[in-house]
Amino acid sequence: MSLNALDSLIETLKRLPGVGQKSAQRMAYHLLQHDRLAMPRLAEALTAAAERIKHCERCHTFSETPLCAVCADPQRDGRLLCVVETPADQAALERTGSYRGYYFVLLGRLSPLDGVGTRQIGVAELLARAAEPGVEEVILATSFTAEGEATAHVLTEALKARGITSTRLARGVPVGSELEYVDLGTIAHALTDRR
Amino acid sequence: MSLNALDSLIETLKRLPGVGQKSAQRMAYHLLQHDRLAMPRLAEALTAAAERIKHCERCHTFSETPLCAVCADPQRDGRLLCVVETPADQAALERTGSYRGYYFVLLGRLSPLDGVGTRQIGVAELLARAAEPGVEEVILATSFTAEGEATAHVLTEALKARGITSTRLARGVPVGSELEYVDLGTIAHALTDRR
Ligand SMILES: [Zn+2]
Ligand SMILES: [Zn+2]
Repeated sequence: MSLNALDSLIETLKRLPGVGQKSAQRMAYHLLQHDRLAMPRLAEALTAAAERIKHCERCHTFSETPLCAVCADPQRDGRLLCVVETPADQAALERTGSYRGYYFVLLGRLSPLDGVGTRQIGVAELLARAAEPGVEEVILATSFTAEGEATAHVLTEALKARGITSTRLARGVPVGSELEYVDLGTIAHALTDRR
Repeated sequence: MSLNALDSLIETLKRLPGVGQKSAQRMAYHLLQHDRLAMPRLAEALTAAAERIKHCERCHTFSETPLCAVCADPQRDGRLLCVVETPADQAALERTGSYRGYYFVLLGRLSPLDGVGTRQIGVAELLARAAEPGVEEVILATSFTAEGEATAHVLTEALKARGITSTRLARGVPVGSELEYVDLGTIAHALTDRR
């Protein structure tokens, strides 16, 4: 079949994370058969996003303006600086409504085998930001995976060497969980970090 | 956050089948952070597909030309006409390499509750196509779901009324299956349709 436009649509959809041959095919057929209007819409949204979304100069999160809305907000608590791996993590923290400080987004975590070192995640910029007057505590909210923990460890040491206090999010039993179903490592950490 | 371009990208990605809020967000973040090049590529592929992919005049499958490659191929067996629900089903049959006739693609199946009647699936066009000289057998390869079976039944009756012979794909035990794990309805059909 000479369906070059179809084949290339399917190939390109496969670049989306979690989309293999079968889902890409199902997506292409669905759009062509049931939702043609979505095709120009999605094309425009992709083009606009690629053109307009840059990184905040101060915290590195996605932003259409040089400073993101959080960094541009003088009402936030300037004593707190929370370090997260991704804009998605930052968004999750914002949704809790329980944090009013500023952020620094690493856009990754240390992973030497993948070529992600301190330069790639902006450690120098973070240290400069954390050394600004008024910052009293850097909260390390990297993930509780091996790489996230290693990243937090490296940052703790680098901050300590500059006399800057850092804390780590508490590990513990997720709210709403029954102990029986929580993994043993989490229970052990919850015991250690008990208040 | 004033991320209108990001929010609208996430909203638009949610129109893809099987993509909810979480996957749309993951897709958008992945593209922005790790694969910016894919964004214009996908935008172009969507635009080209929406503009260039129409339906074959003869069999209704997706085609960039008035006649699809199968319909335009004089080497196929003109005695056989296989009726499928979707271009994906047609592609699956083509991949088996065991069918050399022509196709008719319904682009759906009868589903009165969803407003899909005989007009929407092109029954009149199918009957005209099946009545062309040379066609000896119409193979109904609609799916073996309630709606696919109902569609096959309606088509069988309509074809019979015009003196056209139709057959149905055999139901049976999938190749490679152990009987123990095959559902009872399939085994019952395999018994009935035994050769
Ligand atoms: Zn910012
Ligand atoms: Zn055709």
